[in-house]
Amino acid sequence: MTDRLEAQFAFLNEADRLKSVMRATTLVDGSRRENSGEHSWHLALYALVLADQAGPGVSIDRVIRMLLIHDLVEIDVGDVPIHSQNGQAHASAATQAAEARAADRIFGLLPGDLASDLRALWEEFEAAETPDARFAKSLDRVQPVMANLMSGGGTWASYNVTFDQLETRVGSRIARGAPALWDWVREKARPWFG
Amino acid sequence: MTDRLEAQFAFLNEADRLKSVMRATTLVDGSRRENSGEHSWHLALYALVLADQAGPGVSIDRVIRMLLIHDLVEIDVGDVPIHSQNGQAHASAATQAAEARAADRIFGLLPGDLASDLRALWEEFEAAETPDARFAKSLDRVQPVMANLMSGGGTWASYNVTFDQLETRVGSRIARGAPALWDWVREKARPWFG
Repeated sequence: MTDRLEAQFAFLNEADRLKSVMRATTLVDGSRRENSGEHSWHLALYALVLADQAGPGVSIDRVIRMLLIHDLVEIDVGDVPIHSQNGQAHASAATQAAEARAADRIFGLLPGDLASDLRALWEEFEAAETPDARFAKSLDRVQPVMANLMSGGGTWASYNVTFDQLETRVGSRIARGAPALWDWVREKARPWFG
Repeated sequence: MTDRLEAQFAFLNEADRLKSVMRATTLVDGSRRENSGEHSWHLALYALVLADQAGPGVSIDRVIRMLLIHDLVEIDVGDVPIHSQNGQAHASAATQAAEARAADRIFGLLPGDLASDLRALWEEFEAAETPDARFAKSLDRVQPVMANLMSGGGTWASYNVTFDQLETRVGSRIARGAPALWDWVREKARPWFG
């Protein structure tokens, strides 16, 4: 029991470092960049509130669990902004290998049963093949769009993004797990691009 | 559908402000104070990882949902540190009234069905009577203890807290929903108080 709690808290204390990983996206009020810890909270809240946008067979509670852990590997690897040069293609083999090493280290802090459960959940998110993972990925893509809209352009301005690029890099992935949500957000975003 | 999404995003964009509500507790590394958004994420992760500390009848997925929304009223009311003068007794009638007004305003941004669901979940957390709410409250109390331990004293030093005060203000409430967890954390905390 004591050893188990030691391992559980080794993980929870290490996870705290996600609050210091900075993303390109700002807060809605534009006052500062968002960190990956508060981003993970906001996404879990997105799942709770936008549950009716999920397709059949999606378990919102599993989506929430997935979103709570989806960025933990960034403690070692950092965040790669979607619109930066490295964010546009699928993750490189080097990035994927670094993320797998990070997952080994971070989930490996947990007791064995929890380590394999959460590692499997993270791999499911990364693969984006199950209905739960597709919906989780859609939310992960739509939240920065909303932050950019609310803050007057955000990363679209800093990376000179076009509407076509937004459709390709972001919209197609939102549409995969939440098509009606992308239809609605697309019309909100279009005027910004003129 | 469109009106519903407008309401859902009015809430999600307003919720973003929780990332700017500062708590007394610092990050584990002591580098800065924690905000209530990232705190809510960390607590939801606590629930996921410490599920085996919950008593019979606790639904961890409901606890996680509760923790995701438990601090939203702080957007209007702010955080009251546990060891500050106003944090030690039960919340005053004035604070309770202010929090109820905040809940009216913030949950009231949502479509009616979601507004009543999440408002009821928040009230259940506040009342701390159901097994789910008691466990959620225990986690909300234990996370700052761990941050203080990791960062070399934290709010215990700034508020001159004694071990007896820690037992009364914090320990008794952790023990109510997670007794074995408090037994373990108490022995970790005791040496700090000399």
